[in-house]
Amino acid sequence: MTRLQATYDIESPLGIAHAAAVIAGEQSTGTFIRLAAETDALRDRSAARVEAVEVTATSARPALPCRLKGDSYERGRVTISWPVENFGPSLPNILATVAGNLFELAEVSAIRLLSLDIPDSIAGACPGPQFGISGTRRLMGVETGPMIGTIVKPSVGLSAQETGDLAGDLALAGIDFIKDDELQGNGPACPLEDRAKAVMQALDGAAQKTGRKAMYAFNITDEITDMWRHLEMLEKLGATCAMVSLNSIGLAGLRAVRDRSPLPIHAHRNGWGLVSRSPDIGVAYPAMQKLWRLAGADHLHVNGLASKFTEPDDVVAEAAVSVQAPVSDGAAHQALPVFSSGQTAWQVGPSADVLGNDDFLICAGGGIMSHPGGPADGITSLRQAAEAHRLGLDVTEHAKQRPELAAALATFKGAVTRG
Amino acid sequence: MTRLQATYDIESPLGIAHAAAVIAGEQSTGTFIRLAAETDALRDRSAARVEAVEVTATSARPALPCRLKGDSYERGRVTISWPVENFGPSLPNILATVAGNLFELAEVSAIRLLSLDIPDSIAGACPGPQFGISGTRRLMGVETGPMIGTIVKPSVGLSAQETGDLAGDLALAGIDFIKDDELQGNGPACPLEDRAKAVMQALDGAAQKTGRKAMYAFNITDEITDMWRHLEMLEKLGATCAMVSLNSIGLAGLRAVRDRSPLPIHAHRNGWGLVSRSPDIGVAYPAMQKLWRLAGADHLHVNGLASKFTEPDDVVAEAAVSVQAPVSDGAAHQALPVFSSGQTAWQVGPSADVLGNDDFLICAGGGIMSHPGGPADGITSLRQAAEAHRLGLDVTEHAKQRPELAAALATFKGAVTRG
Repeated sequence: MTRLQATYDIESPLGIAHAAAVIAGEQSTGTFIRLAAETDALRDRSAARVEAVEVTATSARPALPCRLKGDSYERGRVTISWPVENFGPSLPNILATVAGNLFELAEVSAIRLLSLDIPDSIAGACPGPQFGISGTRRLMGVETGPMIGTIVKPSVGLSAQETGDLAGDLALAGIDFIKDDELQGNGPACPLEDRAKAVMQALDGAAQKTGRKAMYAFNITDEITDMWRHLEMLEKLGATCAMVSLNSIGLAGLRAVRDRSPLPIHAHRNGWGLVSRSPDIGVAYPAMQKLWRLAGADHLHVNGLASKFTEPDDVVAEAAVSVQAPVSDGAAHQALPVFSSGQTAWQVGPSADVLGNDDFLICAGGGIMSHPGGPADGITSLRQAAEAHRLGLDVTEHAKQRPELAAALATFKGAVTRG
Repeated sequence: MTRLQATYDIESPLGIAHAAAVIAGEQSTGTFIRLAAETDALRDRSAARVEAVEVTATSARPALPCRLKGDSYERGRVTISWPVENFGPSLPNILATVAGNLFELAEVSAIRLLSLDIPDSIAGACPGPQFGISGTRRLMGVETGPMIGTIVKPSVGLSAQETGDLAGDLALAGIDFIKDDELQGNGPACPLEDRAKAVMQALDGAAQKTGRKAMYAFNITDEITDMWRHLEMLEKLGATCAMVSLNSIGLAGLRAVRDRSPLPIHAHRNGWGLVSRSPDIGVAYPAMQKLWRLAGADHLHVNGLASKFTEPDDVVAEAAVSVQAPVSDGAAHQALPVFSSGQTAWQVGPSADVLGNDDFLICAGGGIMSHPGGPADGITSLRQAAEAHRLGLDVTEHAKQRPELAAALATFKGAVTRG
């Protein structure tokens, strides 16, 4: 593979083969009228190419409102490729190529980017994750098994000192990982530096008792130079992780953090529903996560099984698996999948089953904080669920001798349906 | 207005008042189970508030696939507000608040962010456009009337020298503004620095003859530090505009460019269809453009009337008007609307009508390059169309004595339907 290749699910009033040709033109050498300067030699050198067209369905109505009308609307998969010379290994320009104006074309009444095939020439020129799974395990002091994490809750509203106190309690209770909520950035009500000082003091204190420093992902999401300043501040305090909101800082912002981060980057996908939720327009996670890994994300949120959100479990599973798969033929750039949102002891075993391994982080907020026995029992319940899975035992069976697990399973059964 | 306020169009299987409360909880102090630490005092301080709920319709089926089911699905507008203390004037964190996890909630079967009300405390702490309309007119040397621009076409495939030659020809033909296509970044086939040198030499040469240097927006879209390097290089060459792909560099990336740009920022919205095209999930342009202006965009693409894309004209018109409207009660931060995509002499008058003024840039690619009389006649045809509008004359009537305009109207009638 020497060209960049993208596969889309599209629908068109003009037939998908025609629409694919329009997309290839729009995203490379063409415009709405063929120009004299678009010579054959120029096309050979620079044009995108339609590599495959597979019709899967026909419908009498368009999936999305569409200016062009047809007697029927053909749907299917099309694969388009580009010469790398058009953009080089610049991820922002690659994004403009595979996910740019094509979404607005009147020739398509549905379009989703499903997958990207990345040539090694691009993967090799990008930094990729600096810590990944093994580096994260090392910093966290968790050699085997799933990593158990939580989110500071309430998401916002606690003072810096209250956050530090909570982090200390959780660390003493044996948590591996804590993260700020994505809503807790650097606002006046709880400035990041104050929070980081309070948290790191608490974690260092707890580590003297437990022998292990819990990893805390501080949400550094902010303007670029502010994020760099935050990273320096965090490194001085001995922090071991920085979190960013991917959709807020952008692909170029992520790379800017990667280039100056001494810490693993915990990449939060809040806002992802915006581009994932419609069956008719959007980007599938397996495509986008490759760009985030190339830019340097170490941990990638993949939502959670049976979560509080609407995404079906098969989509969550596909996302989690994709994060561990090689990014190109020759480059692994593996990241740590993070299951999060409405997670409890119920989801630990199924998450491991999805991946076929235990190289994942599962973050339970309410699933730890709201355990009837308190957070320590919440953490224990998640470890017991992991133990049941490792031993190949049914989790409810395993819970019979383990009150923390039993209480979690009873408390959280059906909790996430909320409605 | 002291709180940040957002209005959404939502649909819910649980009733929109209930869904609004869930959104307010999810995006501030709540989670899927109420925690003891979420005290009344903490809520008073930090919780989002539902300000308004207006039911507009009910449907038997959900607009989008949704995990929660209802007997019917209620639709309407809800307004939610947040205390500024949660995030301060940090735009990336504001984005995570108003356009974050809420898109994935199972309590909504449709959700679009329609508008944002920005408090002056935020608007005043953000830089806003550095040049805006008046600064752009000054640099371009166009005191009155619509600014006439074009896009280098073919979008990609021309060498640096060929691009320079084309720019020189266009400048001699009297163009006000030229831009790189968003697909032309800094790839190996046409490196930005080579292109910029060739273009600026050609523009300087043309300026010695015409007395006016056309503005060229070089596409600097790239990693953050690379964009800064590109800006320095461009300034040394005497360039007068830099273009970025908003969705590629992100909101934080835009601000990083603003903070170090000596040039107006030409903000390209390619990829915008991804979040604008579905009636059931997304972000409306009037909401998002406020954040881009706060971060410093000088020129904002708003698509074009009767364009080659699928967006209806009323959406384009609303976008164009929004870019000129004040960003908050006390801050104008006005940007220049850029009409682009499939534009020809036909759209000049209607674009001015939409705005009620001629403070806009209209970019015609094929509409200039494919004019049967050549690019100079293409440019002339656009100026003649502007003249007709200024004089209050019908454009076809005006064309009777003006062969360039007549040829444009004949050539491009219906050209953008393409199908």
